[in-house]
Amino acid sequence: MKGNAIVAQSGGPTAVINASACGVIQEAMKQSDIQGMYAAHNGILGVLNEEIFDMGKEEPEAIEGLKTTPASALGSCRYKVKSQEDFERIVAVFKKYDIRYFFYIGGNDSMDTADRVSKLAADEGYEMRAVGVPKTIDNDLAYTDHCPGYGSVIKYLATMVMEAGRDTEALYTTDTVNVIEAMGRNAGWIAAGCGLARRDEEDAPHIILLPERPFDKEEFKDRVRYFLDKLGRAVIVVSEGTKNPDGTYIAEQKGDFAKDSFGHTQLGGAGLFIKDLVEREVEVKARFAIPSTIQRTGIHFASLTDSHEAYMAGQRAVQHAVEGVSGKMVTLERTSSDPYKCETGLADLVDVANGEKYFPVEWISKDGFFVTEEFRRYATPLIRGEVEPTIKDGLPVFTRFKRHFVKK
Amino acid sequence: MKGNAIVAQSGGPTAVINASACGVIQEAMKQSDIQGMYAAHNGILGVLNEEIFDMGKEEPEAIEGLKTTPASALGSCRYKVKSQEDFERIVAVFKKYDIRYFFYIGGNDSMDTADRVSKLAADEGYEMRAVGVPKTIDNDLAYTDHCPGYGSVIKYLATMVMEAGRDTEALYTTDTVNVIEAMGRNAGWIAAGCGLARRDEEDAPHIILLPERPFDKEEFKDRVRYFLDKLGRAVIVVSEGTKNPDGTYIAEQKGDFAKDSFGHTQLGGAGLFIKDLVEREVEVKARFAIPSTIQRTGIHFASLTDSHEAYMAGQRAVQHAVEGVSGKMVTLERTSSDPYKCETGLADLVDVANGEKYFPVEWISKDGFFVTEEFRRYATPLIRGEVEPTIKDGLPVFTRFKRHFVKK
Repeated sequence: MKGNAIVAQSGGPTAVINASACGVIQEAMKQSDIQGMYAAHNGILGVLNEEIFDMGKEEPEAIEGLKTTPASALGSCRYKVKSQEDFERIVAVFKKYDIRYFFYIGGNDSMDTADRVSKLAADEGYEMRAVGVPKTIDNDLAYTDHCPGYGSVIKYLATMVMEAGRDTEALYTTDTVNVIEAMGRNAGWIAAGCGLARRDEEDAPHIILLPERPFDKEEFKDRVRYFLDKLGRAVIVVSEGTKNPDGTYIAEQKGDFAKDSFGHTQLGGAGLFIKDLVEREVEVKARFAIPSTIQRTGIHFASLTDSHEAYMAGQRAVQHAVEGVSGKMVTLERTSSDPYKCETGLADLVDVANGEKYFPVEWISKDGFFVTEEFRRYATPLIRGEVEPTIKDGLPVFTRFKRHFVKK
Repeated sequence: MKGNAIVAQSGGPTAVINASACGVIQEAMKQSDIQGMYAAHNGILGVLNEEIFDMGKEEPEAIEGLKTTPASALGSCRYKVKSQEDFERIVAVFKKYDIRYFFYIGGNDSMDTADRVSKLAADEGYEMRAVGVPKTIDNDLAYTDHCPGYGSVIKYLATMVMEAGRDTEALYTTDTVNVIEAMGRNAGWIAAGCGLARRDEEDAPHIILLPERPFDKEEFKDRVRYFLDKLGRAVIVVSEGTKNPDGTYIAEQKGDFAKDSFGHTQLGGAGLFIKDLVEREVEVKARFAIPSTIQRTGIHFASLTDSHEAYMAGQRAVQHAVEGVSGKMVTLERTSSDPYKCETGLADLVDVANGEKYFPVEWISKDGFFVTEEFRRYATPLIRGEVEPTIKDGLPVFTRFKRHFVKK
């Protein structure tokens, strides 16, 4: 099937989502069936607004630079396509620009969108193929062993925890506890990944708080005191999604405590809440760090394994589409753990759209405050190797596209 | 003068304070005048408590590993030596262990301590030499062109800003403003250093708030709106020490606004304050990040120039002391900017103790919200080159000493 192709990036960026875009674009440019290779500016909004630019007019070096550029170089968005009008508009735009291949790099919502678009096109008799490429730091997509983006976020965040842990080890006589807030609103995969930083008893982190384990304040305080007794310090990683036994987020806690400490529940977040709790109820000085979006864009110390797999997922999406596949997302399949080997597979978009993969409860240690060796075996291969961006004057160099927009 | 030497690390850690310790220790071990090479556990507390360990009993590889280990591997403290009793105790401990050489790696307070100890020893007729090695991420020591630790913190934080800036560039349709809080309670050097990340108009950061420039809320909001109009987004670096025109810290602001936003003034800090201000008064969604201690311990992307200079400062301290120098701190002297060349000099401890170097007002851009090209020329050479720690299973490997304590 000959025609044009479009690639779009959606949702929160990662360190390697551009590597997936690179895989799509470079592979598509090799395929004779694919004529124009377009990109949607800011995800699906670029389709809805007809802001579509031509990758054929970008420098090959700029495209190659995607491998070492963090975040979404095509632009992303948080727009959730819901209305029938929007879906019809997307198909109409695809028809207008003779777009026959749609590659959508994203999470559940994106897979849902890609699925509906391809079904609507089929209903309308417009032949096209939609293939999804997984992307999420949250590692919560079903039907794939892991998600591109995850290896890099945990490699970088675990390194931050190791380094800041040494800070606490040096200054424990005053700055005794250090709390680091990890992303992950619904699943504890990212916070759990910080467990890789701990190679021996002394190493940080000492405590990991996960959304999958209801927060028990008294047990937590006991655990902090245990490390204060043993090591004189404690480094705590708290997932932003950590919840009370009643299912509310810990930082949303109501009542006098919350009011006393920061009044406005939206502001602080889990890191500040835990820091405050430790200072008030364990009565030692605590510090806190909120790496926020920094953690997901750390290309300067991203996982090379993750980057390669992200590229491969994009590349395979194109190969499958040209071969006739549609309505599927490329998955990562671990074929061997030692030595680590990973190939790609396919899953139905509709299944991925409706699935969600929590951190397995059996990978939480018995005491509830750490991860098991089995998790370590799962996660370690994902963080091996380092992406090495070009450095100029001591800082990395990133790609930015010229964006030659296709005439409306 | 034959005798033992002791090295101590003080105050907040940096990525390269251990490189200075390595310079001291490796050079001391070459000097025949220096017999035992000791380390004080947790800075001057190790002397006061007689917790002194023998570097001669550590593996040479562990000592070499200091070059790629962040924070203070000897242990640090925030204890300010003030009482006559403490000073007398320090000199008594030095006498007891025949310590004739005292190398103190730290900032103003440490230089003050080293100075007083050496003077008291002289008064008591105990021959010893005290030489200081500069250390501070804050870059606020006088009599030195720059401070070991500074190049690494700004290299890493500027990289975080570049990377998180790409996140905002990708998601500006919803997450429009990103605020990153930089350390620096009294001087804006660290926040200013993030200016290096901005190579062109599009690049982050767009606005830098410095303690040296009183915060004008209306001008700030106008500046944010300017970038929203021009680029659709703004990335703001705010120094934790940014102050109101009346000299109070912005995050300490009193009145209804502060109460409404986070009630308890100690908790939030400048980053949260600015994020909140932007959301309330510019009415766009803002995110914030507080890298906190993470920024100062980033050995995985530390400046090799900084690391080399930190080592050199430690090494030269020993050489000078053996030659007879005492009561001095090693300084860094820039002998050429292009090509960059740096040598060491000496300054009186008492002068360094009483000096403080603010960020020069003439290096703030006219509009008050950025830094000048002249600052860029000053800072760029300090961040060149990358320290490369050994990596095992995707994460860095750090040194930890066995600490064979000398018998009391």
